[in-house]
Amino acid sequence: MPQPLHFTIEHRCSESHARVGHIQTPHGAFDTPAFMPIGTRGTIRGLTPRQIRETGSQIVLNNAYHLMLRPGDDLIARMGGVHGFMRWDGPILTDSGGYQAYSMSDINSVDDEGVTFRSIIDGAEIHLGPERSMEVQNNLGADVIMAFDDCPPSVDPATLNESRKRLAKRKGEVLTDSRDHHQRLVIANERTVRWLQRCVAAHSKPHKQALFGIVQGGTNPDLRRQSVEAICNIDLPGYAVGGVAVGESPDQIRSTVEFTVPLLPEEKPRYLMGVGYEQDLVMAIRAGVDMFDCVLPTRNGRNACAFTRSGVLRLRNARYAEDDARIEEDCDCHTCQNGFSRAYLRHLFASREMLGPILVSIHNIRHYQRLMLDIRKAILEDSWSSLSRDWPVLDAPVSRE
Amino acid sequence: MPQPLHFTIEHRCSESHARVGHIQTPHGAFDTPAFMPIGTRGTIRGLTPRQIRETGSQIVLNNAYHLMLRPGDDLIARMGGVHGFMRWDGPILTDSGGYQAYSMSDINSVDDEGVTFRSIIDGAEIHLGPERSMEVQNNLGADVIMAFDDCPPSVDPATLNESRKRLAKRKGEVLTDSRDHHQRLVIANERTVRWLQRCVAAHSKPHKQALFGIVQGGTNPDLRRQSVEAICNIDLPGYAVGGVAVGESPDQIRSTVEFTVPLLPEEKPRYLMGVGYEQDLVMAIRAGVDMFDCVLPTRNGRNACAFTRSGVLRLRNARYAEDDARIEEDCDCHTCQNGFSRAYLRHLFASREMLGPILVSIHNIRHYQRLMLDIRKAILEDSWSSLSRDWPVLDAPVSRE
Repeated sequence: MPQPLHFTIEHRCSESHARVGHIQTPHGAFDTPAFMPIGTRGTIRGLTPRQIRETGSQIVLNNAYHLMLRPGDDLIARMGGVHGFMRWDGPILTDSGGYQAYSMSDINSVDDEGVTFRSIIDGAEIHLGPERSMEVQNNLGADVIMAFDDCPPSVDPATLNESRKRLAKRKGEVLTDSRDHHQRLVIANERTVRWLQRCVAAHSKPHKQALFGIVQGGTNPDLRRQSVEAICNIDLPGYAVGGVAVGESPDQIRSTVEFTVPLLPEEKPRYLMGVGYEQDLVMAIRAGVDMFDCVLPTRNGRNACAFTRSGVLRLRNARYAEDDARIEEDCDCHTCQNGFSRAYLRHLFASREMLGPILVSIHNIRHYQRLMLDIRKAILEDSWSSLSRDWPVLDAPVSRE
Repeated sequence: MPQPLHFTIEHRCSESHARVGHIQTPHGAFDTPAFMPIGTRGTIRGLTPRQIRETGSQIVLNNAYHLMLRPGDDLIARMGGVHGFMRWDGPILTDSGGYQAYSMSDINSVDDEGVTFRSIIDGAEIHLGPERSMEVQNNLGADVIMAFDDCPPSVDPATLNESRKRLAKRKGEVLTDSRDHHQRLVIANERTVRWLQRCVAAHSKPHKQALFGIVQGGTNPDLRRQSVEAICNIDLPGYAVGGVAVGESPDQIRSTVEFTVPLLPEEKPRYLMGVGYEQDLVMAIRAGVDMFDCVLPTRNGRNACAFTRSGVLRLRNARYAEDDARIEEDCDCHTCQNGFSRAYLRHLFASREMLGPILVSIHNIRHYQRLMLDIRKAILEDSWSSLSRDWPVLDAPVSRE
């Protein structure tokens, strides 16, 4: 059977697990390590596909959860799939919908069949499990699709405060102590493997869409190792690390990534889901990750936070009221190249004008893509020290907000 | 003294007062008849200057009222004026701020000195009169600036219902019968002339910014004639017709425009403020108008109404849920050329995604600019009949909403 995805490793770092490569898909190739901006509802908020392309993004992510609820995956299938629907002719990845179903909805039940929840649109009762997630993603037609996994809170409930415990309980996570938490992670590992087998069986377009398995296991090395062994025992075009950056400390994120990623098969793409800040990306790439997605550049951009190589500018701050400098003087993004000043951007945010979120999202996505370009260069040229010199933010502590 | 504006008439219509020309400004030229999209707060909502330029727009309008309140005209002056602030290097026109001060604010007083109102931003008491309006517009630095005029309701209060009478009264317009209304128009005419003289005296950059006078007079031909004579007795680079489309019937708009415009000096640009639908534009151009502004393409675009040559599509309508056609098959706008379907646009509006308003605003502004191109062609080639054939909407009754 023809494979939908071809991964070529072009160069391996001499001092870490990092590698440079490219991935060929039915809708063109993208370079790795790759950062995927998020187009939740089939649109990266406010940006045309041309503007997305100009940030240097080569692949975008869509959320199956949102699109299955509205306008409906069957409608999108009849319209020719997400590529034609959103007019993005490059590679697209969809997630399984599970994470949003868990985190955004009123949960009615979570069991071995999946999750039953109330639609955030109209309150209708919806079931999502491995078979339905595959149906949704087959309908959407992305180049890379994700297994439906069980992603419990990564954090030991003994470390949660009361309000977060209540939240976990409401989300169907009946956790009372560390022992329960460990048991929940074990259940998640087992379910995730069984669900992956059901996803493989249900996947109707394996020749057109590459299905990635997802490793779970929380912050527990033994459970991570067990998950890697069970998941990677199933031959798939790529593997993802899930359950990271869902509440852990920076140290926990680092140790989990650095432990887990090198266990994954070396010749397959490795995708670290939902991570993160610039420092996280460099750490994870050095551990051997090839693909990332994260809401930070767009979500923070909509909130007037502009990323720079020296740190974040909060453009609503009064200090920028008469600052005629660009966000970043030597940035090559559309926003900076066209000379939009911090003062003007602050005015747009103060006036709640759409153009503010748009221009800062463009800058922020380009910021991430420039980082990926420089990281690829650092890998190719063994020049990690000049990367740190050019990106002072990499030496700053991550301010997770 | 060097003139900031040069108007060249290239061709006169053989069967109407219409003419084709171009206007040279300190920031480049624009062709006439010209349509100016509205960038209220120094931004056409959601569009980058490149996207504006690609609609074929050559000149944009900014509202002095909004910019004086936030971020402040003095701040914009320190940032180098509106051109540099919004990064639009083509011609810009600002209005005087008077119309918004009357129509949007809590009015404290209206008298011979101007209007005193509460800021919609912070409730501060603000005075706006001819001198302050000139100061604001000199600070903003647009190529064409407008006289501060007195623009009373055009409609005889005898024809208003009770709620609109109360509104008029709250706005400082103490009208109780037709006789009062006539008297109010007379006062407006007199004030507008006195204020224009004060604007001319206060205008600090007549060599850089072209000040246009504004004709008032409501729907009364005698008062319109008197206003034209008084206003045009003051030598200015251009003249505008104000007080149109502020509540009159389509017949009243037509008769007022067709009566007033031919009275204006032929060799000067004529600007019909705040009008209107496609049918209005053709009528007004045939009466000799050279410049227009109107919120319709952007405001209606943000509300999912797409203009086509056959009429309006309401893209929220369920009939478009699976319509994979573009807004208009042979349209050359970015939205249609890139194949965004009605189904996708409907999805964007249903999901309250910014990209919906952006893509339809782009289409709608281009729709207006295509109309202007075709009208210029009709004037040059005496081909009004083919204009009507290509634009069925011109034969439909205007649906004012």
